[in-house]
Amino acid sequence: MRDKIINESIDLFDTKGFKETSIQDIVDNIGVTKGTFYYYFKSKQELLKDIHLSFIVDLLKRQEEIIGDSNKNNYDKLYDIIYLIISRIKTHGKSARITFREMRHVEEQHLVEIKRKREEFRLNLEKLLKEGITKGEFRNKVEPDILSFAILGMVNRSYFWYNPDGELSEEELVKSYNEILLNGLKNEEPYTQGILH
Amino acid sequence: MRDKIINESIDLFDTKGFKETSIQDIVDNIGVTKGTFYYYFKSKQELLKDIHLSFIVDLLKRQEEIIGDSNKNNYDKLYDIIYLIISRIKTHGKSARITFREMRHVEEQHLVEIKRKREEFRLNLEKLLKEGITKGEFRNKVEPDILSFAILGMVNRSYFWYNPDGELSEEELVKSYNEILLNGLKNEEPYTQGILH
Repeated sequence: MRDKIINESIDLFDTKGFKETSIQDIVDNIGVTKGTFYYYFKSKQELLKDIHLSFIVDLLKRQEEIIGDSNKNNYDKLYDIIYLIISRIKTHGKSARITFREMRHVEEQHLVEIKRKREEFRLNLEKLLKEGITKGEFRNKVEPDILSFAILGMVNRSYFWYNPDGELSEEELVKSYNEILLNGLKNEEPYTQGILH
Repeated sequence: MRDKIINESIDLFDTKGFKETSIQDIVDNIGVTKGTFYYYFKSKQELLKDIHLSFIVDLLKRQEEIIGDSNKNNYDKLYDIIYLIISRIKTHGKSARITFREMRHVEEQHLVEIKRKREEFRLNLEKLLKEGITKGEFRNKVEPDILSFAILGMVNRSYFWYNPDGELSEEELVKSYNEILLNGLKNEEPYTQGILH
């Protein structure tokens, strides 16, 4: 039932907006009473917070598994983290977009918690990049904190344009991001590529 | 007066939210009557649309100037477009964040117009990248459309974390993005950099 309430709410928040959706709307759409709603959630705000928090907690857990894998170098770990984010669009895209948009409606105390977890995800990535630079896997031309913001900006934005049911597969998108990030756009041998000329 | 209304509204939308801010709030804060507001704007929705649209129209104009400069290669043009976006954070950061967040409150017909202009900005960049690939300036490993989404995701996200009054200068941030995008993170000569070992 908890999941049912969450899923119905996500749909309603998406079409009507968070502020404009009442708890009555939510329970009416499922065919239960308000009592059922309050059994699982204290308020609409708490529901929104729970949706966002469970999403980011799950991401963090999986990110830590990737980082903790001692068989992988930092190239592989970076690839896996990008894949982790992209692979969630299909199942959690709508809820992630809504919670991002409606963050303002989350109570201050919960917002702090959500922001801390999001920052934790970024800091884990920053640490990975720092370690990769120390090991000589990554170049040391850009500060790891800027790198982490840049990578997450690029990858997270996919939630707003990428359609996982379209022609471009998740794997192709992740490979493209990895290619840009690792090798860059600059052609080291300009005007000599047979394919182009 | 038009600018005064716009600036006051941006502050109110930021603190109270768009939906929760009334036209009365706006005119009370400036010390004018509702008539003054309606002389410049048909509605609160139209005001929000105007704020966003004038921002993107200005960006588009400047982007076209950059692209049209025949003295510059596509590396320089890419750099200039990134700089264009970052340099607007100081003056238009707040309004850009609000309009992004409150897009849902813009009427459908206006939303179409705004989205078309945003897409135009992205398509101009995509075209530049495509031309750079054909000329051999950029590598042809990633499709230009994915490249354009990736670059704009990375750079636009700065509106949500970068503080132009902080330690990191606009120039340093733009250089960092340019470095990541052109040369990538991969260290071609691992374990040989004197600085690190």
